[in-house]
Amino acid sequence: MGRNFSSDHVAPAHAAIMSAVHKANEGFATSYGGDDLTAKLQSVTGDLFEKQVTVFPVTSGTAANALALSQIVPTFGAIYCYEAAHIVTDEAGAPAFFTGGAQLIGFPAADGKIRPEQLAKAIAYAEDLGIHHVKPGAVTLTQATEWGTVYSLDEISAISEVAKQYALPVHMDGARFANALVHLGCTPAEATWKCGVDVLSLGATKNGALGAEAVVFFDPAMARDFERRRKRAGHLLSKLRFLSAQLNAYLMNGLWLDNARHANAMAARMEQGLKAVSGARLLHPVNANELFVVLPEETASALETQGFKFYRWPLHDDEPGVTIRLVTSYATPSADVDEFIAAASSIKPAAATKPAAATKPKG
Amino acid sequence: MGRNFSSDHVAPAHAAIMSAVHKANEGFATSYGGDDLTAKLQSVTGDLFEKQVTVFPVTSGTAANALALSQIVPTFGAIYCYEAAHIVTDEAGAPAFFTGGAQLIGFPAADGKIRPEQLAKAIAYAEDLGIHHVKPGAVTLTQATEWGTVYSLDEISAISEVAKQYALPVHMDGARFANALVHLGCTPAEATWKCGVDVLSLGATKNGALGAEAVVFFDPAMARDFERRRKRAGHLLSKLRFLSAQLNAYLMNGLWLDNARHANAMAARMEQGLKAVSGARLLHPVNANELFVVLPEETASALETQGFKFYRWPLHDDEPGVTIRLVTSYATPSADVDEFIAAASSIKPAAATKPAAATKPKG
Amino acid sequence: MGRNFSSDHVAPAHAAIMSAVHKANEGFATSYGGDDLTAKLQSVTGDLFEKQVTVFPVTSGTAANALALSQIVPTFGAIYCYEAAHIVTDEAGAPAFFTGGAQLIGFPAADGKIRPEQLAKAIAYAEDLGIHHVKPGAVTLTQATEWGTVYSLDEISAISEVAKQYALPVHMDGARFANALVHLGCTPAEATWKCGVDVLSLGATKNGALGAEAVVFFDPAMARDFERRRKRAGHLLSKLRFLSAQLNAYLMNGLWLDNARHANAMAARMEQGLKAVSGARLLHPVNANELFVVLPEETASALETQGFKFYRWPLHDDEPGVTIRLVTSYATPSADVDEFIAAASSIKPAAATKPAAATKPKG
Amino acid sequence: MGRNFSSDHVAPAHAAIMSAVHKANEGFATSYGGDDLTAKLQSVTGDLFEKQVTVFPVTSGTAANALALSQIVPTFGAIYCYEAAHIVTDEAGAPAFFTGGAQLIGFPAADGKIRPEQLAKAIAYAEDLGIHHVKPGAVTLTQATEWGTVYSLDEISAISEVAKQYALPVHMDGARFANALVHLGCTPAEATWKCGVDVLSLGATKNGALGAEAVVFFDPAMARDFERRRKRAGHLLSKLRFLSAQLNAYLMNGLWLDNARHANAMAARMEQGLKAVSGARLLHPVNANELFVVLPEETASALETQGFKFYRWPLHDDEPGVTIRLVTSYATPSADVDEFIAAASSIKPAAATKPAAATKPKG
Repeated sequence: MGRNFSSDHVAPAHAAIMSAVHKANEGFATSYGGDDLTAKLQSVTGDLFEKQVTVFPVTSGTAANALALSQIVPTFGAIYCYEAAHIVTDEAGAPAFFTGGAQLIGFPAADGKIRPEQLAKAIAYAEDLGIHHVKPGAVTLTQATEWGTVYSLDEISAISEVAKQYALPVHMDGARFANALVHLGCTPAEATWKCGVDVLSLGATKNGALGAEAVVFFDPAMARDFERRRKRAGHLLSKLRFLSAQLNAYLMNGLWLDNARHANAMAARMEQGLKAVSGARLLHPVNANELFVVLPEETASALETQGFKFYRWPLHDDEPGVTIRLVTSYATPSADVDEFIAAASSIKPAAATKPAAATKPKG
Repeated sequence: MGRNFSSDHVAPAHAAIMSAVHKANEGFATSYGGDDLTAKLQSVTGDLFEKQVTVFPVTSGTAANALALSQIVPTFGAIYCYEAAHIVTDEAGAPAFFTGGAQLIGFPAADGKIRPEQLAKAIAYAEDLGIHHVKPGAVTLTQATEWGTVYSLDEISAISEVAKQYALPVHMDGARFANALVHLGCTPAEATWKCGVDVLSLGATKNGALGAEAVVFFDPAMARDFERRRKRAGHLLSKLRFLSAQLNAYLMNGLWLDNARHANAMAARMEQGLKAVSGARLLHPVNANELFVVLPEETASALETQGFKFYRWPLHDDEPGVTIRLVTSYATPSADVDEFIAAASSIKPAAATKPAAATKPKG
Repeated sequence: MGRNFSSDHVAPAHAAIMSAVHKANEGFATSYGGDDLTAKLQSVTGDLFEKQVTVFPVTSGTAANALALSQIVPTFGAIYCYEAAHIVTDEAGAPAFFTGGAQLIGFPAADGKIRPEQLAKAIAYAEDLGIHHVKPGAVTLTQATEWGTVYSLDEISAISEVAKQYALPVHMDGARFANALVHLGCTPAEATWKCGVDVLSLGATKNGALGAEAVVFFDPAMARDFERRRKRAGHLLSKLRFLSAQLNAYLMNGLWLDNARHANAMAARMEQGLKAVSGARLLHPVNANELFVVLPEETASALETQGFKFYRWPLHDDEPGVTIRLVTSYATPSADVDEFIAAASSIKPAAATKPAAATKPKG
Repeated sequence: MGRNFSSDHVAPAHAAIMSAVHKANEGFATSYGGDDLTAKLQSVTGDLFEKQVTVFPVTSGTAANALALSQIVPTFGAIYCYEAAHIVTDEAGAPAFFTGGAQLIGFPAADGKIRPEQLAKAIAYAEDLGIHHVKPGAVTLTQATEWGTVYSLDEISAISEVAKQYALPVHMDGARFANALVHLGCTPAEATWKCGVDVLSLGATKNGALGAEAVVFFDPAMARDFERRRKRAGHLLSKLRFLSAQLNAYLMNGLWLDNARHANAMAARMEQGLKAVSGARLLHPVNANELFVVLPEETASALETQGFKFYRWPLHDDEPGVTIRLVTSYATPSADVDEFIAAASSIKPAAATKPAAATKPKG
């Protein structure tokens, strides 16, 4: 059951969220978002972000990202992003489907963070090619990134600045936004619209919900007709109260931050422990709740045999040893981390060996 | 709270389904459908339909319909249906979006049931026009229909026969499939693949779930790559166990039929009671859980004033009086029906009057 | 060779247009529309329409219509039209493809002309259904219509007025615009923007070009980024001068009107002659260059046997006898018409008989 | 007029092709490809390629590529290609539009030629990610490449072999196929299906046509319903004879090879001459009719001032000096080349300087 570091969505839902769903199940309620809980979600979110926002609950991160992008990018547009962003590699083509053909233009980035110079260069290139090229449409950042790093506020601002010069909206894929927020130690407002983010995919599922994400527009005018897009994509639930209930419970009383804080702490504990593991090497700074660790094949295999769950990660470039991803969540017991470290530390590999075939990674 | 006949999805979730969700929330589980509950759903459904099937849980009827159709209709294809089918009027263009451009070709039908002759004629017309026209792609039936009527098995078979002559797959929008099944008094198999249905959108939300529908393929070969379509549409949930749990609870131990039986009985009770209501006239036979009733404006207004909830229905053709839709559900208390009838019977309208503007209908 | 009434695009290109293509083939020229002939087309068209316009040459009517509609209709929108408009029946799903899913909502119309009341009713219905329905997007008229009739200026204005109330743009499919213009005897401006048309698909191919149509926007602001849509659809030709040359020759010196005048005159001659044909009955007034004639099967067969070319027309409703379509063009010799009439008149059918299977109609 | 090296489509149409268009304009002809010239095109092409093929004339290279890819790649598929292939940078998103969302996955390649290892690795990566990633759909090669190099037959075979292992079809963008063929000195069959190419976009416009390309399927079964795709994209011309006439003239009597031979010879002459130009450096081998030359800014500017036409090329990587593209065509006079060389040679730049802003490149 435990000892599972394969992803943060293998965890169950948090008791407080489950309880909110239960409580939402009282009597009849207007469907399609006409209920009280959905109304409340607007104000709860607005209060948190210190701004009037428009919030749309959906059931998956892919839906949140693709719907958000389809709202802000023309069908003949370019979406600038990290070349191995989740939308590029793990959403099965959703952005192009939802936008009707927009093109993902990915930039290389060792740490998963794109740079303002890359954006500026790509836009200049597009302008040079004119109508023969896709039209610059939007830039999207993943926060925390696909590699468990976190953009600083300055880094985001620098990218937004370039985007604004060309009137490009900025989207943030915040599947693990709470984890980033806890790392940054700033307010939700500072982490988003105050540094130029226009639309946020706000994740909750990986951090304690049953299945709830939200698209948050910081400028309500930008959300015009968005509800039509959500509806025609099959993402407007009739009994929407059950989604809104989850999000309210998530965002109220600091649950989202508490959960993220625990997940991050478990990752830090793991990071600390790994120092004692022979042959272990971190690929990236551990800013949130993911660790990418190069291990000797012998160690990785032994851990698998002992029942620890994690993914072997496919890498484009050849690395000696095997790279694994460890993800902690709000539900990770510290004992699981300690057991993992204890087990890993006790393995004394002969030498670094060839990596075995990667197992199938997910989300 | 009660006295709400506006739709069957204003009802809460059934206790047994809520309880199943609760029970699903134990420990870690493989995400994206690798969990036990999702595995179980395959066999539960297969057993019920007496056939090996492939089942894909999704969260909305629009998603189920549009995904199913996109799987079986070419992007340059025609989808034959009733001209006021839910997919035509109430899914915001989802079928064309998911198929990448397939065209809905609707047939008129006073009772919501299309006829085999209409299909044959439309296909002949398409073949006549050749590549200048959309290619015949699939036929879709709503069961129970948009008007609360139910196709007989013979009626479905006759349509399927025409479809099969041209190798067209048959889709069934079963948002209220259980209600139809109860009316027909036949097995799920008889109501679907035994009369030629290839793919079923199986609804549960309107009949007791929190938000769960399923796409059921009766020929697993037809489902090839369907999971990719579901994923890229954002309809593959990471914590899929919570959807599968709902569907299992729904389909096991006859809950779906019990719920539908109650809903239908409430509709029949309402039908019976309406005989005593002055100026009331049913537009269609009441086979399932929906009633379309023409009432004097005076009566409709008075009921609204007394707090009864229902929709005034927009009709293409002019009718004297006002047409309202009454929907019952598994959660409708018989007392609510009786109160409605009592209230309606006690109103003595002066005469039929002009209808007021329709209120916004939903789903 | 001659005696061909099957369509107006079976005719060759007009000598003056062919000669213009020849003349365009001198020396090097900037590609993708940077040439002088394309620049000239803007002013030629602007002068004709007494307004600053933006003109985009394309090679087919389907491209012109679908591109124009995709520019003005949201991907989740409704396109209101005649239920058997060319875009509905003969463009293989192009509007839904180009718009990414917009839905065609067709109105019945015996003479091919939709009515303002139909539009008003459909919009009201859409507003009633709100986000569950496709959003009203645009209205499109075919001028001359699919049945060879022509909208009067008042009829167009009445439709535009309803459209403008809801801020819907008005598109005109003018595949046979010149034929309509000649019938109306008004200016191009009067026939378009002065009665509320925002975008025109201006046909030339059926009236003498090799293959040239144009999308004309009467408000340049409405054409924003249209060139990107044209490019990504593969409709921006590199040697655009050859298209522009055709259109210039077509529009200058009255060639388009001369050609249309002849075509219409031949149709009128045919109409006159048909009075002498036993059992012949016109289905619609002959306003342009198409005639829909019910003939005894015996007569139709005999004419086919004698080598006259025309299409048997598929009709939704059952008619005794066979309906044929006769199309005249700028290149139809009056002798051909006279021979057709002479041949038809000399046939003395026993009685009206069942129609044979329709031959494949085109465009 | 002359001295224009900006592109091969700034040239006029070849006299023989223009004359064929003229000749095609005789009398009435069945529309939409039912004419004799289109029938002839099938056999002409089949004879040339020594195989039964199915050929579809279209008017642009973007249309040919995008239509071909949409036929062979699922809407949720991946298209493997060179990262700066024409379909990636210069077709405004056409592949994603036509496929309804397929994703371009580009590989780096200094010489514009992708390698079999890159393909194998990308497919392995996709299989690892499973349904979360786009499904491997097809591989596409540009021949001659975007950098004027030409794949050897062995190079193509090696890529095809990997593709075939995974049942992926191979597409070739042959906008400059004739130029490659002349360079390879092999037969059309050897250059295509004999080394594993399944579908060819066969260009003619850059090599002497007015505007004519063809999609050639080497397995007619693979072309099923392709004509519906062409039609709904607006690329089925009614007077198709004029396109077929161009292609027939192009392919018969060796005109295509003669034209390409001249263009290539002019490029070789230019290459030879450049050796005498101070500071000039070729970026790539000159295999066909394009040259990418680094020049001192002073030289480039002086040539522009003297009226020579060419594009400054945008490069992703920083290069000292300025990179220009020179394109020769069937119509390039050797005198133009000689004048260019003479002018360039006479300029004696002080030193390499910073490049000025690139001018807008095209096609």
